[in-house]
Amino acid sequence: MKNNSLKEIAQKLSEAKSILLFPHINVDGDALGSTVALCKALRLAGKEAWVLLEDDIPANLRFLDKGYCTWNQELIAEPDICMCVDCGDKGRFEKRADKFDEGKITVCVDHHRTTEFFCDYNYVDSEEAATGQIVFQLIKELGTEPDKEIGEAIYAAIITDTGNYQYSNTQKKSHEITMELYDWGIDCNKVSVEIYENTRMEKILLKNLAMETLKVLEGGKGAILYVTQEMLEKTGGLMEETEGFSQDLRSIAGVEYAAVVKEYGPELARVSFRAKTKGDVAKIAQRLGGGGHTKAAGCTIYAPIEEAFKMVEKELITGIKELG
Amino acid sequence: MKNNSLKEIAQKLSEAKSILLFPHINVDGDALGSTVALCKALRLAGKEAWVLLEDDIPANLRFLDKGYCTWNQELIAEPDICMCVDCGDKGRFEKRADKFDEGKITVCVDHHRTTEFFCDYNYVDSEEAATGQIVFQLIKELGTEPDKEIGEAIYAAIITDTGNYQYSNTQKKSHEITMELYDWGIDCNKVSVEIYENTRMEKILLKNLAMETLKVLEGGKGAILYVTQEMLEKTGGLMEETEGFSQDLRSIAGVEYAAVVKEYGPELARVSFRAKTKGDVAKIAQRLGGGGHTKAAGCTIYAPIEEAFKMVEKELITGIKELG
Repeated sequence: MKNNSLKEIAQKLSEAKSILLFPHINVDGDALGSTVALCKALRLAGKEAWVLLEDDIPANLRFLDKGYCTWNQELIAEPDICMCVDCGDKGRFEKRADKFDEGKITVCVDHHRTTEFFCDYNYVDSEEAATGQIVFQLIKELGTEPDKEIGEAIYAAIITDTGNYQYSNTQKKSHEITMELYDWGIDCNKVSVEIYENTRMEKILLKNLAMETLKVLEGGKGAILYVTQEMLEKTGGLMEETEGFSQDLRSIAGVEYAAVVKEYGPELARVSFRAKTKGDVAKIAQRLGGGGHTKAAGCTIYAPIEEAFKMVEKELITGIKELG
Repeated sequence: MKNNSLKEIAQKLSEAKSILLFPHINVDGDALGSTVALCKALRLAGKEAWVLLEDDIPANLRFLDKGYCTWNQELIAEPDICMCVDCGDKGRFEKRADKFDEGKITVCVDHHRTTEFFCDYNYVDSEEAATGQIVFQLIKELGTEPDKEIGEAIYAAIITDTGNYQYSNTQKKSHEITMELYDWGIDCNKVSVEIYENTRMEKILLKNLAMETLKVLEGGKGAILYVTQEMLEKTGGLMEETEGFSQDLRSIAGVEYAAVVKEYGPELARVSFRAKTKGDVAKIAQRLGGGGHTKAAGCTIYAPIEEAFKMVEKELITGIKELG
């Protein structure tokens, strides 16, 4: 199965009456921004369209949902199209996978390197800094008129996945699309304040506590910390608020590999990896059953937090040694 | 005295043989990036050009100086042009003010709202997100060929003064110039890693300590903290490493005004102010003898830290009440 063109996918969307959009679990700015933008564009074209979720939207992204998201799988009985966005396998929307298969046509639009074509129509380009950039082009193929709300959702997708144009995945094109979004009338600072300047005091307290567990590896080339359920209880912080901690660790001078190990349950840990310059964390995450990008990846470990921490520590050390 | 055109200023620079560039004290990414970029452009045009400093370059900006900066005021006896960049009064380069007056022609290029024309030639545009953007246009007027090193210095200026394109001063033009810099061959991620991913562990410890002094004002609309010399000694952190703390405070949900009060001496405190959406910190800073932008400003207070803290706290509360 080959990469389809955005024109082909736009054609299929135009022919459909009902479309269900599937962002990945633990929805982030790119997944939610992309699906919300596409959902509104489809509604403007007269379609019945919804973003189907299985978990909560992080507080700082809730402004994006102006009536586009649903948790009700019965809302559309047999969708003409089920489309997964910013994710490339059903494990990323496990509780919605059966619903996804109900789609008369399935579509995948994504930018993750580890994604394999598994839908009727697939558009996967790992060069794209954000899936939001692909969706922007798809929306233009759909003939959608410039729209401030759509623009701000795309903008949210781009800034969160490029780390405000600072990550190595950022392209000249990311700035080019942003310029076009300015013409769509978007209020960049408003979006930015919603996403970045809404930090709860509890998150700050949680971070101070988590920082106390910081362990430096291999003479400073690695940095790892953990977050437990107990810390959440103590500070009132939420696990979703630890997003960004791995980026903070990466920003320490000399650190090439960073990881944050998060206790989700007695035998369930999720890990965020970051690499700075030479490293490849997609490789490290894959060894632990996960995946992602070269500089940002993740995995799930079914083990107690102490054990998960040791497994991650070991793989980071191996990764550092491989860099030579 | 009116605003001169960049063409006029480029003409004067072209006619000169020796040029001394004056960024402001406590040099930041915009001031240093702008002067380094201009310095290299002038040298490429065969001029004798130097960036004259009076204090240290912060560690994360040192990569910009590839032999352009000097602390030796005798290097050029009577410069044809003395040009201050990213600052608008002699108080911002006090120890170099006499040298500045030696210039046969004086020039000011700046983007601060509070700057008044005080040189022979002045180009001040407070709409510009960074002085680096003005310098980029000036360099093009000079006819400089695309140059990676110059491009990276301009890029450093833009990202530091726009908070990676997130602050409200960011323009569509900021992205447009960045796209052009991509054509100049700049390595954006390399610059970004130098500036943002070189955080010393000591800074992180300092921040954790400073966060303990956090005081929340008026039901969460204000946030203020202080940093003492004792904290620096205890953690090994440097005062220059507190840059960004005020931005961090602003990012707390509900906070409209943020301030960081820094003890520089027994009777000397410097203050960084930030406003989030409706506030105007230039006004607050001016009441305390300082100045700056609407969303980011500063002042110097000649008083012990406790007293300075109380003065700033009082003005923040007044500012919050004025917002209604």
